[in-house]
Amino acid sequence: MPEYLSTAPVKGTRDFLPAEMSVRTQVFGHLYDVLERYGYLRYDGPILEQAEVYERKSGQEIADQQLYTLTTRGGERLALRPEMTPSVARMIAGHAKSLSFPVRWYSHPNCHRYERPQRGRVREHWQINADIFGSESANCEIEMFELIHDLMGAVGATPDMFAVRVNDRNLLSSALTDVVGISPDHLPQVFALVDRWEKTSAEEHAASAAEIGLSDKQYEKLAETLGAGPALLDELPAEVKAESNLIKVLSSSAASLVRYEPLIVRGLAYYTSTVFEVFDTSPQNRRALFGGGRYSNLASMFTKEQISGIGFGMGDVTLMDFLDTHGLTPQPRSEVDVTVIPVTEDLADPARDVATALRKAGLRTSTPLELRKLGKELTRADKAGAVAVVIVGEEDWAAGRVTVRSLATREQQQVAVADVPATVRAMVSPA
Amino acid sequence: MPEYLSTAPVKGTRDFLPAEMSVRTQVFGHLYDVLERYGYLRYDGPILEQAEVYERKSGQEIADQQLYTLTTRGGERLALRPEMTPSVARMIAGHAKSLSFPVRWYSHPNCHRYERPQRGRVREHWQINADIFGSESANCEIEMFELIHDLMGAVGATPDMFAVRVNDRNLLSSALTDVVGISPDHLPQVFALVDRWEKTSAEEHAASAAEIGLSDKQYEKLAETLGAGPALLDELPAEVKAESNLIKVLSSSAASLVRYEPLIVRGLAYYTSTVFEVFDTSPQNRRALFGGGRYSNLASMFTKEQISGIGFGMGDVTLMDFLDTHGLTPQPRSEVDVTVIPVTEDLADPARDVATALRKAGLRTSTPLELRKLGKELTRADKAGAVAVVIVGEEDWAAGRVTVRSLATREQQQVAVADVPATVRAMVSPA
Repeated sequence: MPEYLSTAPVKGTRDFLPAEMSVRTQVFGHLYDVLERYGYLRYDGPILEQAEVYERKSGQEIADQQLYTLTTRGGERLALRPEMTPSVARMIAGHAKSLSFPVRWYSHPNCHRYERPQRGRVREHWQINADIFGSESANCEIEMFELIHDLMGAVGATPDMFAVRVNDRNLLSSALTDVVGISPDHLPQVFALVDRWEKTSAEEHAASAAEIGLSDKQYEKLAETLGAGPALLDELPAEVKAESNLIKVLSSSAASLVRYEPLIVRGLAYYTSTVFEVFDTSPQNRRALFGGGRYSNLASMFTKEQISGIGFGMGDVTLMDFLDTHGLTPQPRSEVDVTVIPVTEDLADPARDVATALRKAGLRTSTPLELRKLGKELTRADKAGAVAVVIVGEEDWAAGRVTVRSLATREQQQVAVADVPATVRAMVSPA
Repeated sequence: MPEYLSTAPVKGTRDFLPAEMSVRTQVFGHLYDVLERYGYLRYDGPILEQAEVYERKSGQEIADQQLYTLTTRGGERLALRPEMTPSVARMIAGHAKSLSFPVRWYSHPNCHRYERPQRGRVREHWQINADIFGSESANCEIEMFELIHDLMGAVGATPDMFAVRVNDRNLLSSALTDVVGISPDHLPQVFALVDRWEKTSAEEHAASAAEIGLSDKQYEKLAETLGAGPALLDELPAEVKAESNLIKVLSSSAASLVRYEPLIVRGLAYYTSTVFEVFDTSPQNRRALFGGGRYSNLASMFTKEQISGIGFGMGDVTLMDFLDTHGLTPQPRSEVDVTVIPVTEDLADPARDVATALRKAGLRTSTPLELRKLGKELTRADKAGAVAVVIVGEEDWAAGRVTVRSLATREQQQVAVADVPATVRAMVSPA
């Protein structure tokens, strides 16, 4: 046993010290604000779920290799949630009778996956989940895309910094069968190939296509089709397009918010039609930031009722990377607005009274815990980002006054005790 | 395997649906506000820690029986944190060189303990932790007690609803040895007896005292001493009192914030002098809501540097019970401020434009996802707590107008599109 335990967090997990936490609080606060303005209601659920929930649904890779599982003293086999969707499906299924659908919900859970250790890869992240449950209308898609644009805008992103790339799996199926001529039996394997298309080379594509059993001609047509962009839509059967919410989006005022991309699949098994991903357009960071899609029967392991929906999960790691890449990371907030310094220990009680009045006025106010020289306290207040200090001296206090000093200008003024909150407020938020 | 999985959360864990989550968000928001006004900085850390951290420190009951542990595929033995103190001690120890002490930190972690199943007992809770690290001054105690009063006030509690009961373990040791005449060897057992004093009967006290080896006379003196209240202070040696921060508090202006109680111990092993608990004074719920204390060497398992501090952990379960008992639980916030309803599907795009303008003005705004009859949408908007609906009709829209309807008065007015945000804002927040 080592004499001292390591002060590093467990591998793949993260500590957030106050400066970093302040950045996060600001960023997430902006996102919550936007979600609330769209009428999304926040919920939360336990980090522990029955392991079986994930083993049944989340895809074999997660269940086999990435799940943190534990067995309790009572014999229950539990898992740390790797994602929020099964939890919210459980909650929606359990309360379906009392909810008036459609509902808009969001949450901000901490999710764990035991990823293979790679550079920068973490094993837990905080993910904003936003969903609409109980509607199959294309209005949901439109709202999701507007919401995503407003979320990105709220953290400072301009439309040139990202693209919302969209597809409909039914359009893709039709393109693969009707345009490329792939047999329906091969669709699952071809979907998997399309899903990794952008991450692999042309040689790998060709090899995979051959392995699946596509002819050279089919492979060439596949590559051409996936690269066709919006022109592909002209080749798809009208009856397929008539059923597609995405086609409705593309003919609405929301068309400008998205870019149709025939090769977007999104790995997770839930999605049944619309899929989308938000893509970082900066040359040095070209990759998906987050994604989502529509599911026709979300809660099938919990209920016979068919609950449709659409949603996305936005993880903190890629979002913070995006903000860093684009110079959008906010500064940590100052620690306090003002510090009240008693000149002697005897003046600690009066200083606390002044601090109380400042806090009542909504100002973040500290008092020194240890009595040190005034100069040292001024330096400390400055380092904490205080705009002002209030100095409580003996004679001043006896005369009902204190000294208010601006840390920016170093100007001092004598202020009647009752006027201190208004004076400091004016320095913190100038008119 | 059952056909459908249960929709109940894992035993001892909780789902928070939007209405309950809204209550929680309001309550915790008030608490965060107060903490920030005192200059406390929020931090966060991983829910997983090395299991050894708790096995070394948190007290044998937690490590033996209450810890959720798991072994990763990489062979690490981890635990879900049962409390935040070891995590924050680790973080403070790891960053001690770059911090300028004293620091004020707070967090709001989810903590897990595998408690024996009892009525209403949960196995996870969310606990606000607030600490000052790196100061031994009695100013810390005073600030903690002011902070606690302001936190309780922020959630609506008046001073008659709760009491802050305080003690100093060194005063208790002195009382037990100098006043009761207990041998120092017996102190640990007597501390444990005192800790459960209020939860057990006089018969049990006497039996325990006899078991420890106290004489009848010592037992009588013990009972008398623990019940003496502030009068006990007169009997304690001056040199013991001179070293006590609590005595300094009791002679400051903060004395009125606390009640000296010789029998307060607080179970956890960390505390070394000051201990306190916030006690619900309502007759039907007399019990400790939360507690805390001072520790002289918090991070001893991580560093040779001696880091002192004082802090408390305020759990959500007892706090919410307290609010319920005293009728202080806030109402859930309304789901939206306003709903914008297009009369026909063709007007969905214009309705979205109006909604966008309302959101830009900070109003929580929804639009219907499925087109239903106007009456049905009005009912739904009313149920969602909307103050107003904006109805977008064809002729109105062509003339640059919409109808704004108050759901309280049912009065309607025609409003120019550009004036909609100001009109609705005035209805949501009347001057």
